[in-house]
Amino acid sequence: MYHSLVLIFSLGFCISQIVIAQNATNTYVGPGIPYATPVSGNYGGALRPQVHFSPPKGFMNDPNGLFVDANGTWHLYYQYNPTDVIAGNQHWGHATSADLYTWINQPIALWPPNDFTFIYSGSAVIDSNNTSGFFPNQDNGVVAIFTLAQVINGVGGLQAQGIAYSYDGGYSFNMYAGNPVLNINSTQFRDPKVFWYPGTQKWIMVVSYASDFTVGIYTSPNLKDWTHASNFSHHGLLGLQYECPNLVEMPVAGSNSTMWLMFISINPGAPLGGSISQYFPGSFNGTHFIAVDQVSRIADFAKDNYAGQFFSGIPGSQPQIQLDWSSNWQYTGLVPTGPTEGWRGCMTVPRESYLEQLPSVGWTLISVPYSISSQFLKEITSSDDLKNGTLLLDYSQVSSGALYFEANITGLNPDILAGTVNFTFASSASGEYVKGGTMVNGITWLSRHNIRGFDNPYFTDKFSSNGIYSGSQNGSWTISGVLDRTILEIFVNGGQQSATMTFYPTAPLDMLWIGTNSIPENVRVSVAVWALKDAWATQENFNGTVVGNVTST
Amino acid sequence: MYHSLVLIFSLGFCISQIVIAQNATNTYVGPGIPYATPVSGNYGGALRPQVHFSPPKGFMNDPNGLFVDANGTWHLYYQYNPTDVIAGNQHWGHATSADLYTWINQPIALWPPNDFTFIYSGSAVIDSNNTSGFFPNQDNGVVAIFTLAQVINGVGGLQAQGIAYSYDGGYSFNMYAGNPVLNINSTQFRDPKVFWYPGTQKWIMVVSYASDFTVGIYTSPNLKDWTHASNFSHHGLLGLQYECPNLVEMPVAGSNSTMWLMFISINPGAPLGGSISQYFPGSFNGTHFIAVDQVSRIADFAKDNYAGQFFSGIPGSQPQIQLDWSSNWQYTGLVPTGPTEGWRGCMTVPRESYLEQLPSVGWTLISVPYSISSQFLKEITSSDDLKNGTLLLDYSQVSSGALYFEANITGLNPDILAGTVNFTFASSASGEYVKGGTMVNGITWLSRHNIRGFDNPYFTDKFSSNGIYSGSQNGSWTISGVLDRTILEIFVNGGQQSATMTFYPTAPLDMLWIGTNSIPENVRVSVAVWALKDAWATQENFNGTVVGNVTST
Repeated sequence: MYHSLVLIFSLGFCISQIVIAQNATNTYVGPGIPYATPVSGNYGGALRPQVHFSPPKGFMNDPNGLFVDANGTWHLYYQYNPTDVIAGNQHWGHATSADLYTWINQPIALWPPNDFTFIYSGSAVIDSNNTSGFFPNQDNGVVAIFTLAQVINGVGGLQAQGIAYSYDGGYSFNMYAGNPVLNINSTQFRDPKVFWYPGTQKWIMVVSYASDFTVGIYTSPNLKDWTHASNFSHHGLLGLQYECPNLVEMPVAGSNSTMWLMFISINPGAPLGGSISQYFPGSFNGTHFIAVDQVSRIADFAKDNYAGQFFSGIPGSQPQIQLDWSSNWQYTGLVPTGPTEGWRGCMTVPRESYLEQLPSVGWTLISVPYSISSQFLKEITSSDDLKNGTLLLDYSQVSSGALYFEANITGLNPDILAGTVNFTFASSASGEYVKGGTMVNGITWLSRHNIRGFDNPYFTDKFSSNGIYSGSQNGSWTISGVLDRTILEIFVNGGQQSATMTFYPTAPLDMLWIGTNSIPENVRVSVAVWALKDAWATQENFNGTVVGNVTST
Repeated sequence: MYHSLVLIFSLGFCISQIVIAQNATNTYVGPGIPYATPVSGNYGGALRPQVHFSPPKGFMNDPNGLFVDANGTWHLYYQYNPTDVIAGNQHWGHATSADLYTWINQPIALWPPNDFTFIYSGSAVIDSNNTSGFFPNQDNGVVAIFTLAQVINGVGGLQAQGIAYSYDGGYSFNMYAGNPVLNINSTQFRDPKVFWYPGTQKWIMVVSYASDFTVGIYTSPNLKDWTHASNFSHHGLLGLQYECPNLVEMPVAGSNSTMWLMFISINPGAPLGGSISQYFPGSFNGTHFIAVDQVSRIADFAKDNYAGQFFSGIPGSQPQIQLDWSSNWQYTGLVPTGPTEGWRGCMTVPRESYLEQLPSVGWTLISVPYSISSQFLKEITSSDDLKNGTLLLDYSQVSSGALYFEANITGLNPDILAGTVNFTFASSASGEYVKGGTMVNGITWLSRHNIRGFDNPYFTDKFSSNGIYSGSQNGSWTISGVLDRTILEIFVNGGQQSATMTFYPTAPLDMLWIGTNSIPENVRVSVAVWALKDAWATQENFNGTVVGNVTST
């Protein structure tokens, strides 16, 4: 942002009364919002995930502007209400990471231009060739593209696309004076995701005409002037709105080729209620996306995965990396982290993904945690042959409360596809538990039915999905997962299926059982569990507060 | 069936040892199965629905062969295991009704040709023009078309389509000696649904290549010789199998035109887990079906609605009528009606349906209970203006335990779309309850979370869906429902959304609360509740047994 008359606060207790004077491009710093310094927060609460990103305080929803810079620093922006634990007053929060797990909170990156126009979701790109003209003297200029959304007296108004540019690698932004850059006089036009398409030497934007169930595809030479190219509409599940479209090129397993993926979030009205994401593999020629078929594919089989965004700037020949918001609009404003710990909203672990044509069901988005081993503190239990037995673990001494586990069934005979792995994470204090399991060549399931810290008419208790054994699995069937205090993510067969489930126990989970059943002769089950790092605890000051990047650039 | 050497049993205790000798077309009457006389059963159990069809004993799944004869008698056949309360040993059970609610159990209609070939799902038509040649002397000959499914030592084998013909209006059948009439040497080829297409003077069959996610469309002049015309494949949600396709012409609301509907059940792998049905509006020209768009539409937003079939013989200009199976393959073999009452499986109430283009979401299958008022015993409570108040009803004296309720919000101002209606059916003895509600211009939800008579990892507790107020509703928003001991079906705005939910309380539900909230000024809420008839009780003999149609034709 461009702040010619910015006041820097010296008295914290005063800021709730200060409205910053603005220049012509307008930046509105609302009451109570720290400027140019990170929002600080306490990450020590019992409900606070330790290897997942959550905001220091306030409310977070969609990941925005994901990019990786030339130094290998990952930038996460996010829809952020810094002044309350429900959605509203949307800014772009900002955090950076070297490993996608340990995040450093940065100052808020994008602010409303005035008190009735908010910064909704969008994306960011590095304009290394200065197509925009903003960056005559650098090759690391960053442009953010987002929705300027009017909300007047609580009623939504115009939604148009704006841009802002950053000279300092994405830490601070200047609003473009020519905003909006794309305005069709709609109240349902948002969430631009932009990428560079070498084939036409153009920027491509996918953007949602939300209530028309349409993704508009636009092209631009300079990020300022946008030309409509085509629409992709009325595919798959509609719900009541399409949101947060992504269009991304990614590798195809077992080949050197790539394919394109249209990824669309819908809310409300998902089959399980509320929010969900779906995807469409297909082809893209610079102007038109064509889905490979008329199939509707859901990205995650539980209920807490929405608004996923892929990092920009990763070549399509490499696995793509995404973050998703781990909640559901049906209950996100009610979960107990708000009143007890002052924050709501969490991202998934980063997921690395590609496309694979599986037997029977065909094209599938395969995703697993990105380099989760970088977060291993130590292996705390394992078994090389847990055949029809049970492994019991007390992990109350793991300070993060976060575990990664893997169970691998190997040596399967395709003619005798049997065997199950079940797991239970329980609280020794309260008896509450989450559980799940997978069956070779069959169902994978999760349950939060026996957790008592939160309930509401939409907090569905059980989730399941079915998989099929593939010969390419070479006799194996696996399940892995990340359990992090109040979120569980599981991955079947290296990411053929995945699920994200939040839950809110009244006492910390600290016991794990993993058991196997019906494992045939000559089949082996290996199980291992790792304690995960305390990513946030390393940043706590003597008060237990994480203050973030106090040396603002 | 054609039984040249049939033995009629005179001693009931002997039948479990008798295997009937067969003629060349083979009919295998297994041990313990009554021949030419209905299976009797007790319908008095606390878990037994009273205005829904359930089998006298044993296990029921898909509705089959639905047709209405010239006398106005409705024929329901169904996938039936007469010897156990889990799936297997599939026959076609049979029942008839004058009103689609009061059913008379008839003798089993279709039997396996041998002990390793079962009769899987299919349909029935009246061959009034004797296209088949089976009926030179009558215009009411019935032909059943079904899958002959080999199951050898528990392993599925060949699935091919067979036919059988009935001279007596569908009460008894003769296997066609030329079976199978359609065989592609597949183990995944089933559930033929046949109808007459006047435009080409041909019979049309839609049949599932289940694991290829393909519906084959075949044509025939005579029900015996079938020609492949086209395939409809890879649309919508796949799950792991397409089953039970229907293709039916039906009216379009607000016009004199008709449209075609492809209705496909998928199992397992539905978004909520297990079984679900989806549909595709479109056009049909006698050989090809083309969906109107690439949208995936789910027929019912809860988890107990599968394998729906439309009655044959109703002109496309009239609302179509269907029955669906009210369970889910994830847990149908475990529900407590088996051990406690000796039966499992229930149909929905008959639903009358048409297509309507709703605002925003577009083409929608609208369905409501068919002529439910025919089942009203009496109105037991009502309110003409339940604005922001509560109505409490003790219905322990309603012997059926079955109620129909309606709540109508009227006089809505499109600028102030507010108001909710919530309901709770509870047990005064156990405190268990099911509940639900609807919000004007918003969500409708159901919960079986607080019912304790059955739980399992797949028995999901909560369901929800979203609707949008339409000006054509003329200021109204309504919810209605049928509660029948262990099944609840609800319908929003005259069937724009519907849901089917089974549940198994430990004590009968006998209390109802209906409450409203946030109803604006000048808006009215009328509520009424009717006791429903004891359809089965009227057929009980002095032992409490329903013996069915003892005068077999």
